Amino acid sequence: MQTRIEVGILGATGMVGQHFIKFLQGNPWFDLKWLGASDRSAGKKYKDAMTWHLAGGTPDSVAGLTVDECKPGNAPRLVFSAMDAGVATEIERAFAQAGHVVVSNSRNHRMEQDVPLLVPEINPDHLKLVPGQQRARGWKGQIVTNPNCSTIGLVMALGPLKQFGITKVIVTTMQAISGAGYPGVSSMDIMGNVIPFIGGEEEKMEMETQKILGDFAGDRIAPLAAKVSAHCNRVAVVDGHTETVSVEFSSKPSEADLRQALESFRGLPQERNLPSAPPRPVIYMEQANRPQPRKDAERERGMAAFVGRLRVCHALDYKFVVLSHNTIRGAAGAAVLNAELMHSEGMLDS
Amino acid sequence: MQTRIEVGILGATGMVGQHFIKFLQGNPWFDLKWLGASDRSAGKKYKDAMTWHLAGGTPDSVAGLTVDECKPGNAPRLVFSAMDAGVATEIERAFAQAGHVVVSNSRNHRMEQDVPLLVPEINPDHLKLVPGQQRARGWKGQIVTNPNCSTIGLVMALGPLKQFGITKVIVTTMQAISGAGYPGVSSMDIMGNVIPFIGGEEEKMEMETQKILGDFAGDRIAPLAAKVSAHCNRVAVVDGHTETVSVEFSSKPSEADLRQALESFRGLPQERNLPSAPPRPVIYMEQANRPQPRKDAERERGMAAFVGRLRVCHALDYKFVVLSHNTIRGAAGAAVLNAELMHSEGMLDS
Amino acid sequence: MQTRIEVGILGATGMVGQHFIKFLQGNPWFDLKWLGASDRSAGKKYKDAMTWHLAGGTPDSVAGLTVDECKPGNAPRLVFSAMDAGVATEIERAFAQAGHVVVSNSRNHRMEQDVPLLVPEINPDHLKLVPGQQRARGWKGQIVTNPNCSTIGLVMALGPLKQFGITKVIVTTMQAISGAGYPGVSSMDIMGNVIPFIGGEEEKMEMETQKILGDFAGDRIAPLAAKVSAHCNRVAVVDGHTETVSVEFSSKPSEADLRQALESFRGLPQERNLPSAPPRPVIYMEQANRPQPRKDAERERGMAAFVGRLRVCHALDYKFVVLSHNTIRGAAGAAVLNAELMHSEGMLDS
Amino acid sequence: MQTRIEVGILGATGMVGQHFIKFLQGNPWFDLKWLGASDRSAGKKYKDAMTWHLAGGTPDSVAGLTVDECKPGNAPRLVFSAMDAGVATEIERAFAQAGHVVVSNSRNHRMEQDVPLLVPEINPDHLKLVPGQQRARGWKGQIVTNPNCSTIGLVMALGPLKQFGITKVIVTTMQAISGAGYPGVSSMDIMGNVIPFIGGEEEKMEMETQKILGDFAGDRIAPLAAKVSAHCNRVAVVDGHTETVSVEFSSKPSEADLRQALESFRGLPQERNLPSAPPRPVIYMEQANRPQPRKDAERERGMAAFVGRLRVCHALDYKFVVLSHNTIRGAAGAAVLNAELMHSEGMLDS
Repeated sequence: MQTRIEVGILGATGMVGQHFIKFLQGNPWFDLKWLGASDRSAGKKYKDAMTWHLAGGTPDSVAGLTVDECKPGNAPRLVFSAMDAGVATEIERAFAQAGHVVVSNSRNHRMEQDVPLLVPEINPDHLKLVPGQQRARGWKGQIVTNPNCSTIGLVMALGPLKQFGITKVIVTTMQAISGAGYPGVSSMDIMGNVIPFIGGEEEKMEMETQKILGDFAGDRIAPLAAKVSAHCNRVAVVDGHTETVSVEFSSKPSEADLRQALESFRGLPQERNLPSAPPRPVIYMEQANRPQPRKDAERERGMAAFVGRLRVCHALDYKFVVLSHNTIRGAAGAAVLNAELMHSEGMLDS
Repeated sequence: MQTRIEVGILGATGMVGQHFIKFLQGNPWFDLKWLGASDRSAGKKYKDAMTWHLAGGTPDSVAGLTVDECKPGNAPRLVFSAMDAGVATEIERAFAQAGHVVVSNSRNHRMEQDVPLLVPEINPDHLKLVPGQQRARGWKGQIVTNPNCSTIGLVMALGPLKQFGITKVIVTTMQAISGAGYPGVSSMDIMGNVIPFIGGEEEKMEMETQKILGDFAGDRIAPLAAKVSAHCNRVAVVDGHTETVSVEFSSKPSEADLRQALESFRGLPQERNLPSAPPRPVIYMEQANRPQPRKDAERERGMAAFVGRLRVCHALDYKFVVLSHNTIRGAAGAAVLNAELMHSEGMLDS
Repeated sequence: MQTRIEVGILGATGMVGQHFIKFLQGNPWFDLKWLGASDRSAGKKYKDAMTWHLAGGTPDSVAGLTVDECKPGNAPRLVFSAMDAGVATEIERAFAQAGHVVVSNSRNHRMEQDVPLLVPEINPDHLKLVPGQQRARGWKGQIVTNPNCSTIGLVMALGPLKQFGITKVIVTTMQAISGAGYPGVSSMDIMGNVIPFIGGEEEKMEMETQKILGDFAGDRIAPLAAKVSAHCNRVAVVDGHTETVSVEFSSKPSEADLRQALESFRGLPQERNLPSAPPRPVIYMEQANRPQPRKDAERERGMAAFVGRLRVCHALDYKFVVLSHNTIRGAAGAAVLNAELMHSEGMLDS
Repeated sequence: MQTRIEVGILGATGMVGQHFIKFLQGNPWFDLKWLGASDRSAGKKYKDAMTWHLAGGTPDSVAGLTVDECKPGNAPRLVFSAMDAGVATEIERAFAQAGHVVVSNSRNHRMEQDVPLLVPEINPDHLKLVPGQQRARGWKGQIVTNPNCSTIGLVMALGPLKQFGITKVIVTTMQAISGAGYPGVSSMDIMGNVIPFIGGEEEKMEMETQKILGDFAGDRIAPLAAKVSAHCNRVAVVDGHTETVSVEFSSKPSEADLRQALESFRGLPQERNLPSAPPRPVIYMEQANRPQPRKDAERERGMAAFVGRLRVCHALDYKFVVLSHNTIRGAAGAAVLNAELMHSEGMLDS
């Protein structure tokens, strides 16, 4: 086996950091060697610096690593960022400035004009923003981001349909509690309940979708001109965001064409057989009552989008249901796949 | 106090029948005296004929009543129908034929041309279908229906907005398990899960909404010309259907106008102070994260629709959330309010 | 109507404080006029000082009250304490010192030798500790406490059985999330899960049970000599603690005697018809699968203990299930009933 | 690789049958080749004969198998029985009579005097009942059973402690809904609730525990003389039964001895490295609030018992919590491990 690339995690002690640690186990390209966290944790063994919240326990190879401060210097060149929005802006920039490749799950830089908001199957060409980013900011390093956990399922389903001219999208999400981190949502709020509001989520979904489905235009992305409207809700589900979607097209396809577009869809990650790529990015489920989060989100290692119930919409053109795993394809797995795509493009060669 | 009107229930032993029994407790106009059920139950004391599933236990005044067969004859003139769709068609017709006023929660006759699908605040004039119904069918009695539990919240919110010319509606429901009766939804299917499908529900919501918001046209209802599209989902909630709604208008009002229309809305039940009428049919909730089913559905005795989060929709014109109690305003309470309206119109005088 | 007694709440903005406010609505003896909270809230209108977490909204009569600091002076003579354990000790003492009758739900003083841990049906004579408390501490006022929410159901079921000589008790609780306040238990911890540990709860249950069932011995309570062992668990229930109990007796009664003792049990609150007293403190439920928290905890206004499944225990003598409402009979309702008993004893006359 | 042994499943279309199919995937010794079910299913492709309820979908290697009737003849010699209790008695006997080795998860034969109720780590010597069973019944085949899903965790924790002379056991279970099959428990009964009763479960737990921990006595098992008392409850958990246990010993050990006995425990399956054996049958978890079903039940492939919170019990001697996966170690996995032990004993050689 070839030498694996050493990688680090910024914000390793939080819930998203734990998901990164878990997802990176067994990755054939990336070798997790460095953990960064707040000053409070720095200097401690990882296992003593946090409470592990995920099923299965802290991996042995990580439990004994000593946590470092989130400062460039000792960290490997490639770092995944799992930092809270409150601190991510400055730290990610400092790392990029210092020559690090920052592959970030944080929302802070997603909507900046020269930062790719990358979904490898959908918009790999958005990586072309990087040289301009480096030039404009005077960075040797770079920042590449992945979308919000509610956006990812939607764009993976819409990506293959972009060819038909998407003009309007209305989406209602039923989002899992794990998307809110730990302790996150109080059980008093969500048990036997629906919370029809998630702060800032609708705006993120709407803008991120337009950017991801937009076109590379030299030094920025020209967002998709479609009108996108999101209703975001929290429901009593542990993992997996379910979304109902109505879409209008400028060149209205037949239902069979849509179905075919979804089922035959493959992207660069599949072509290049990237380690974390699902064999098929979109899985169409035939049964009338699927996909369902508890039963389906973990299939395909949580890396595919599951679509079902494609049918005519009487108000727009067509409607369907899409499900994706919010902490895997919607967070840690998304960033790792981004880094794999970048490696396959030679962007991690120093 | 005036003499109360004796009433009966068709299908009294099922879950919906139990909701009728519970809701009728303390009604100042209607006195529950007769319970009809299948042959298997007929002849037994009510308490021995069923297992009571609702909180609070079987009311004493009903526990000792002897269950009768669902045949006209011994039943009071006014009967509420809580029958399963599998048997409701023939039995309801037989009762109407025999001179009974059948106020039904069953879906069987809702979409028939000469049968009112009544929401007293929204379309009280649809009762004008009744004389034609009686003439055409040669009935001394009549059948009047109330909508599906998923439809009621939507039409109570849309009713006050009809004046602005509703042209498109897209609604996503997150429906409570109690809507499926008992044993209904398996816990293996819904715990920590979302089921993105309820058989026949979307078709019902779409058609019923158009009929309820339609106009009386002599011998039938001219359905509202709006395009209506529903996505129906089951979530892990006990009582209360939450719905996200996007609407397009032909005369696009300001947000303030819409808000004003919702908050100032009153109907005949409020004007006439019907016993089961909520003081305000639509309650607008200010907080960003309301309404919520577990916290709000039982307010106002479960008879109001709770609306929140009115805001601009980037794909249609406006969007909002609506919540209503599916087994009260969406079933038993709806039928009782229908009968109260009919009584206030003199339609129960023999 | 006689003049009602003005009362106040210490810690009015927290979850327990809200339960006090809700429970006191409509109380014929007590008139809520004063709300004390932390400095941060003092001076604000109540409705602006907190987020209301209970169903039904903030009562109008309370929403506009101005919150005061938790200092004696402006408060009425009778104050209910809903304070966090972290601050209750000093503040409750200061109020008692200053002449206030402090009826507390906080755990801080429960196990002090001269403080009654009162359950009006079970140990009303423990109020005899008060004069000694006042003498020893030089207080004009006094502190009276109610038990932990997990203890109350157990002692209400065991009280009527004390006559048979209780020697051993093993109890396993399945406790509702509302017992942990707000935000309390993270949904990530309890959804579809059991947490087999609640910090300090087992010790409280064991010691409080022995004290409550103990005998007044002049200046202190001689605790019941029974061996008590508790296993405390959190489960995914909103309200209502369910407990399985095995008991051994020195004079082993027949099952019929036990059943009779439970069903015929009445205490002083019933005799004196105290406003918040349930007609029967213990309700025995016949059905094999009852009591159940979601279906039964709110019966009898949440003030009774529901017992079921009394049967032989092969390891000790008998076993049964008991359910009680943790935030009503286990908190606010308990304290209010305590104050009602005290009033009926003339202890609130100045 | 050696030739694998062909195996079949009786009752392959039900929920337990599906668990067998899933668990047998990848088993190095057993090759699933035959599926038996009711006449209604016989002749159909497996995928058309049932609705798959488990996460991950029907394994491809099984989906296309044709379902057979549950009659000896075409079935392989080794059959796992996943049959409902209503039909298992006659069919299992017919197969044993015809020479099949029936390794059954059904409850029907568990308590018969000459049938092993086998837990390979705990009572492998109970297999010595088989020759007598064959002689007495004139069978060439045999029936070997595994315990109820609620019993398995208890006996795996008590087995290592038997050496200290167990005299009394009181156990309270909090059982997952998957133990009741499909559709099983109605969501209306268990959402946000506890059901303090499972028909027949307490009797099974008490008797099975005594048999499993009993001694082989020539032609039968002399049950353990300990007094065992069970309280069985259903809680809102998908997989994993949690149990609180109090135990009394005739030779009361120190807490350290108990802990050591649990942690060092290994059985024949570990010694012989059976394919489905967990490396350690009992995993002791240090954290104060573990084990928890949603977070821990699936560790060790669901084949271990997880114990925590060992501490003094004030009523008996010690108490602890035990968790085991009810559909794996408590059903399909138990039977497969039984068969593996039998194979290692040469009992599957024809």
